[in-house]
Amino acid sequence: MLPFLTMKQMRTAVFGASGYAGGELMRLLARHPSMQLERAFAKSLAGAAVSSVHAWSDEGAVFEEFSSADEIEAEVCFLALPHGESMEIAPALLDRGKIVIDLGGDHRLKDRALFEKFYNKPQTSGAILDEAVYGLPEWNADAIRAARFVANPGCYATSVILALAPLLVEGMIEPDSIIINAMSGVSGAGRKASIEYSFAEVNENVKAYRIGDHQHIPEIETVLREISEQEVKITFTPHLIPVTRGIYSTICAELSGAFSESDVQAAFQKHYSNKPFVRLPTSIPEIRRVTNTNFADIYARVLPERNQVIIISTLDNLVKGAAGQAIQNMNLVCGFPETEGLL
Amino acid sequence: MLPFLTMKQMRTAVFGASGYAGGELMRLLARHPSMQLERAFAKSLAGAAVSSVHAWSDEGAVFEEFSSADEIEAEVCFLALPHGESMEIAPALLDRGKIVIDLGGDHRLKDRALFEKFYNKPQTSGAILDEAVYGLPEWNADAIRAARFVANPGCYATSVILALAPLLVEGMIEPDSIIINAMSGVSGAGRKASIEYSFAEVNENVKAYRIGDHQHIPEIETVLREISEQEVKITFTPHLIPVTRGIYSTICAELSGAFSESDVQAAFQKHYSNKPFVRLPTSIPEIRRVTNTNFADIYARVLPERNQVIIISTLDNLVKGAAGQAIQNMNLVCGFPETEGLL
Amino acid sequence: MLPFLTMKQMRTAVFGASGYAGGELMRLLARHPSMQLERAFAKSLAGAAVSSVHAWSDEGAVFEEFSSADEIEAEVCFLALPHGESMEIAPALLDRGKIVIDLGGDHRLKDRALFEKFYNKPQTSGAILDEAVYGLPEWNADAIRAARFVANPGCYATSVILALAPLLVEGMIEPDSIIINAMSGVSGAGRKASIEYSFAEVNENVKAYRIGDHQHIPEIETVLREISEQEVKITFTPHLIPVTRGIYSTICAELSGAFSESDVQAAFQKHYSNKPFVRLPTSIPEIRRVTNTNFADIYARVLPERNQVIIISTLDNLVKGAAGQAIQNMNLVCGFPETEGLL
Amino acid sequence: MLPFLTMKQMRTAVFGASGYAGGELMRLLARHPSMQLERAFAKSLAGAAVSSVHAWSDEGAVFEEFSSADEIEAEVCFLALPHGESMEIAPALLDRGKIVIDLGGDHRLKDRALFEKFYNKPQTSGAILDEAVYGLPEWNADAIRAARFVANPGCYATSVILALAPLLVEGMIEPDSIIINAMSGVSGAGRKASIEYSFAEVNENVKAYRIGDHQHIPEIETVLREISEQEVKITFTPHLIPVTRGIYSTICAELSGAFSESDVQAAFQKHYSNKPFVRLPTSIPEIRRVTNTNFADIYARVLPERNQVIIISTLDNLVKGAAGQAIQNMNLVCGFPETEGLL
Repeated sequence: MLPFLTMKQMRTAVFGASGYAGGELMRLLARHPSMQLERAFAKSLAGAAVSSVHAWSDEGAVFEEFSSADEIEAEVCFLALPHGESMEIAPALLDRGKIVIDLGGDHRLKDRALFEKFYNKPQTSGAILDEAVYGLPEWNADAIRAARFVANPGCYATSVILALAPLLVEGMIEPDSIIINAMSGVSGAGRKASIEYSFAEVNENVKAYRIGDHQHIPEIETVLREISEQEVKITFTPHLIPVTRGIYSTICAELSGAFSESDVQAAFQKHYSNKPFVRLPTSIPEIRRVTNTNFADIYARVLPERNQVIIISTLDNLVKGAAGQAIQNMNLVCGFPETEGLL
Repeated sequence: MLPFLTMKQMRTAVFGASGYAGGELMRLLARHPSMQLERAFAKSLAGAAVSSVHAWSDEGAVFEEFSSADEIEAEVCFLALPHGESMEIAPALLDRGKIVIDLGGDHRLKDRALFEKFYNKPQTSGAILDEAVYGLPEWNADAIRAARFVANPGCYATSVILALAPLLVEGMIEPDSIIINAMSGVSGAGRKASIEYSFAEVNENVKAYRIGDHQHIPEIETVLREISEQEVKITFTPHLIPVTRGIYSTICAELSGAFSESDVQAAFQKHYSNKPFVRLPTSIPEIRRVTNTNFADIYARVLPERNQVIIISTLDNLVKGAAGQAIQNMNLVCGFPETEGLL
Repeated sequence: MLPFLTMKQMRTAVFGASGYAGGELMRLLARHPSMQLERAFAKSLAGAAVSSVHAWSDEGAVFEEFSSADEIEAEVCFLALPHGESMEIAPALLDRGKIVIDLGGDHRLKDRALFEKFYNKPQTSGAILDEAVYGLPEWNADAIRAARFVANPGCYATSVILALAPLLVEGMIEPDSIIINAMSGVSGAGRKASIEYSFAEVNENVKAYRIGDHQHIPEIETVLREISEQEVKITFTPHLIPVTRGIYSTICAELSGAFSESDVQAAFQKHYSNKPFVRLPTSIPEIRRVTNTNFADIYARVLPERNQVIIISTLDNLVKGAAGQAIQNMNLVCGFPETEGLL
Repeated sequence: MLPFLTMKQMRTAVFGASGYAGGELMRLLARHPSMQLERAFAKSLAGAAVSSVHAWSDEGAVFEEFSSADEIEAEVCFLALPHGESMEIAPALLDRGKIVIDLGGDHRLKDRALFEKFYNKPQTSGAILDEAVYGLPEWNADAIRAARFVANPGCYATSVILALAPLLVEGMIEPDSIIINAMSGVSGAGRKASIEYSFAEVNENVKAYRIGDHQHIPEIETVLREISEQEVKITFTPHLIPVTRGIYSTICAELSGAFSESDVQAAFQKHYSNKPFVRLPTSIPEIRRVTNTNFADIYARVLPERNQVIIISTLDNLVKGAAGQAIQNMNLVCGFPETEGLL
């Protein structure tokens, strides 16, 4: 354990603090008993009051512009930056011995070719890419506890991997039969000036997007392959719907045997009964049950005449899908209780 | 042709006129050049002003309570009633020689056992059930033209059947591989007092419902089997989302050969290029493009590495999914141009 | 009457065709029996398909960049441009003999000092400013019929002036006692990339803006002074609410005598009973009753113990508050029936 | 101090636990360090899981039917019942020595004639009506600390009284010049099956209601008269808007002298600088800044040319407008810190 890990109050810096995930991080850190927010970096809004952007904020704090890793005193750095930006900052922070939790996509895929294909830019972090640990605590807690560099999963990816991993590990579904339809609230697109996400365009509307080429496809396939030790192939269609927060994934897969709903439920119980942030409700999940929480709700129904299972998985894209999970990861890295500041 | 079919102005009666589909019917009839609304029946609101329910209405008209088929002078009767109610009224209306367009589900399934399984009540219309013609004009126009009793299709069913029929008929997809996720606006549940559909419950929320047992499943399977002359099996999961109007269906099916996107597009063109209410946009459909119109927008993408096609189909549940299609059917029955009053 | 006013089909050009008001104009013109859309100018989107912006549009038409007034063959030009842009184009168009309907604010105020104070820019149109006729047909129809240059009123202004003018003209309210609270849907801010109007900021939110300095204040005060021949002073607070379309104005004024609700109603009847687009409902207005229509609904309640009247006025900001009223004006200028293409 | 007030954990019972305010109470109590929820009464849902209604709830708890005050062991009873029901239960509870916080309207008005006029039913509580203390802690904390029966203020009333009291007490506004326009989210109408509050009716809509006769009018006038020792007369128009939570009040009043914005701001500072739940932001308030918090945000702008002040006051109707304020009151009654469990 590094010396500063004994400190009661860890100090943190948030990069990309003006975005929705950055703001949610700051809100959660403010009530975390063992953390103290030290710096809030937001390039485009340096000098502006945090409260001018984040409704919950007191009027005091001000966004800063980041200049150099040498000036950071905080022990933990959260990177909530647009894709492609954390790989420019993370190496220097790690070099100065910081714990880094990257909420962006830059370090989730070890395969640089795959990254470049789905993110349309080169992956340039160098050696640190191999060091990044995929931060899905329900499946990777030991590695996270030993890590100092965590790649926080994508929001859709968290929702889908949590839903599928138990059934794949138990050999209950065919790994190439998976069809996923998912919906996301608008905050998932980030806080940005865009006609596409303006109220008058999104309200009373639904639109699928990035059919077959969303960047979470390789993330889901790679992680599920590693967890279940078999090739996994998914069909994934995301949709933008008129809600602010929430992911709702509806997944269909072929059963690899005559499994009943109880069998499926038993598999979920086996893997999640001691996981504090996965709930297994007995009725169909709703987004509002997870809004503003770090919970993922997972539910399954077997269709015997079709030999299929329908799995529904829902979470708040800004909490379990981003900032909450980042803090859950930080709790593990720093040796705090996994749920600290999150219940 | 029956004698009254030569009249310039046909008279119509709407049963269930206080509901959303009934209201939409009245609105569309009001601007139809060859139709005249004569009676608006709404049991629970008899005596109330139509304008107290339907925002677009002038202040004059009043809902009536239906007493007897003998009193109806209108040549055309639209039944926009809760499931189970039109089978009580339709026989007498047909007996008096009325043209009947039933927007409910009572006469869509010829198989009474199937009806009772999915609607949870017996089908009691008697002989007229066999007479009902399924009113999907894009696939059944000749039979509709010859009919005087039309079973108007369900909203989800219209959306899904239009999307799948061309590819099934052309033998391009496997008929037992179909996975459908669909979303509906709240008006699809009808106009009723219910906590479940109240704003505070639906807003910022999503919920799947009737997984695997929705009453449109047998309708879709039966109609697609008849159209494509093969057994068709679907997995169908509907979702309630916070929009007022619209159906958005995202369908995944396995290709039965190495078909390209052009092949798929050619199949749609072949069957729909001369159909006035099916559009084949070149970009991903959005609900707002079809809102308040009788159009269904259908779009497909082939995923070669998965050997699958993703088809997206969207329509307004109250227009092409209910009242608009009912008028389209009536136009065919009465010998008016198919698009009259609908563009 | 100018020679081209005898033509059955007038040709029109829309400037600012990619905005919400421009799009609504095109949609309404497409179904106008005596008008034909010839050109759709949209600087920033020249070359793009109209259907890529406006959901209702067919896929054929393309936005163009405007180069010179000499190239316009259309007899009627609608300017749906950001404030400050129509005064650069209108003079040349008028010079070529075009009929010009300006939907922007540039020519609504004859007092250049007032314009510069509220619009923060100089008014530079030159002599044509005096020629512009304020296009509120319910109060100015004769002047509009004789005009070839119309300044189309603001959306809030239309809503408020229609509500107050009858009571001011009849001397029933104190002209310096008027307190107006108004709400607008988001489309009123125009189609633009802006964090402020993004779904995640507007949904589940309300915010007042431009308290005491909104540019419609001098427009309302000036027009009401001219109509009622007395000084009028208003307090006006606009609010942004999470709806796409609609203006809802709630107005409180002191009665100048012991007038009853019937007296107030009689004043409205006197001025509006023969006006096709003003309705006087007998129950409290709702936005959805006017959505997608050119109607303004006006309703009043007298509070005898307070000696006040509450007037509620609602309209669709894109129709009666912009494009619909522009066509109503054009109908008057061109000698068409006032309601043509609008019912 | 009563003996049980020394206990570390107080026990509470919630009546009307299935409603929105009841649910919010339970959610807040669950995280209150000194309170323990013992009973959740909900007549119509007795036996149902709390989680079937309240999304945030764990799956264990069950609603009960209340039978007799003798069976209640809890020291504190919250009544979150429809108007008219708490006066039937409160006497027996007070008789058994319970602390009672009534969130309904039954005990806010001491004047029985006024109650009957605005609530359309007789006030039948008997002697306890005089004992009820109006629970607005910012103006009545001493009386609340000494009370065991608190009438929790209405949501609109809280918003309006907090906005006006400082300026009335300081003699800065004319007490008969007050014009209030307020908007409420749909949860303010309670959790009930009603077409009026269904999503398809409320979405994309606005509607004023109870113009001039809302039951919060006498509450506001009475309380402001008591606080400021002068007759106060208001004009109050509430509106239903398509948000789930939030009250937004925009108030106009005539200044009684040449007061500047600084003068007004100083009056607010004088009365609220040490009040933990009133914030005085420097920019125009927004609902989302107070959602899910117990804060009221108050802001004022002086219009010198009109000699008026515009005051904007916003809060979450379910928190500061109901359950949060109820707990704030309970904290005072029980001797806990005022903010306990609320920050």
